[in-house]
Amino acid sequence: MKRSLGAKTIIYPTPVLVVGTYDKNDKANAMTVAWGGICSSRPPCVAISIRKAAYSYGNIVERKAFTINIPSETHVKEADYFGIVSGRKKDKFLMAGLTPVRSKFVDAPYIKEFPFILECILIQTVEIGRHIQFIGEIVDLKANESVLDENGNLDIERVKPILFAPVSRTYYGLGRYLGKAFSVGKEI
Amino acid sequence: MKRSLGAKTIIYPTPVLVVGTYDKNDKANAMTVAWGGICSSRPPCVAISIRKAAYSYGNIVERKAFTINIPSETHVKEADYFGIVSGRKKDKFLMAGLTPVRSKFVDAPYIKEFPFILECILIQTVEIGRHIQFIGEIVDLKANESVLDENGNLDIERVKPILFAPVSRTYYGLGRYLGKAFSVGKEI
Repeated sequence: MKRSLGAKTIIYPTPVLVVGTYDKNDKANAMTVAWGGICSSRPPCVAISIRKAAYSYGNIVERKAFTINIPSETHVKEADYFGIVSGRKKDKFLMAGLTPVRSKFVDAPYIKEFPFILECILIQTVEIGRHIQFIGEIVDLKANESVLDENGNLDIERVKPILFAPVSRTYYGLGRYLGKAFSVGKEI
Repeated sequence: MKRSLGAKTIIYPTPVLVVGTYDKNDKANAMTVAWGGICSSRPPCVAISIRKAAYSYGNIVERKAFTINIPSETHVKEADYFGIVSGRKKDKFLMAGLTPVRSKFVDAPYIKEFPFILECILIQTVEIGRHIQFIGEIVDLKANESVLDENGNLDIERVKPILFAPVSRTYYGLGRYLGKAFSVGKEI
């Protein structure tokens, strides 16, 4: 028998996505969002939900582009900071001591120090309620050499991503390897 | 200098969401999806992306409801199985040895053995490409007593959720506690 807890917005794991944008003065901004994820394979797309009040909201509407920057464990403070403070008041990159780099393919900055990033072009905007969902087509993934394996593929154990737990509002690291997908289930 | 890997659909962490639906004969089905996440706080909503070819696609269109079932580490085989096999051919609950329970608020079954589940009513359908995104309003979260803390709140360390790594197609567990959100960033 399960206990009812009401209409809570909890799934585990929830990602820690740092969204990179430019404002109208070309100032780079970064904002952390937890509501998002990959939403399509073809075209390759990622969805992020942002409140209209957020500074990044206007930046994305204006520039029609954003980056998704995935932090490592070592960036937990910076990632959290980007979710606390508004870019309207602060130069968040400067405060956090991180470096914005102009993307090659889209009109948005990415974070040099984060292990990998997605360059995205806005292709759809979905009104849900207090949050607006932006769907961005992923045009490139860029990664630091240090998080690639010997075959040049992204290695999650080198990335050491951060996981967010909603409601309890806590961060966790990557745990132990559990098995190969599309494989362990064949034993059933 | 980051290396370009092309338009890859990778974010870390990606969730393992098992979607519960009924087909037109009231047979319970479960399908694992990795493309999804919370997409709105008010109304509380979750988004999942499913290809039109999937058996669950028709079920959701027909019933306008689904559940999201979060597996524990111990269910990694069952969760993977639900992503490999089609409900068109098999009674997946029977094969996996899991129990479908009729939801209280929505026209969809949830998985008794999984630690917590969301009951969702379809409120929006977004065409993206090969994937269709279903946005469901969360009307209730139900959890096993065993994953609640002494205050009756969901405890991620008791849930022990599974994390999926796209492209490498691997599963991982929950790692170590890294800090409190909306707090550790204040040190900057």
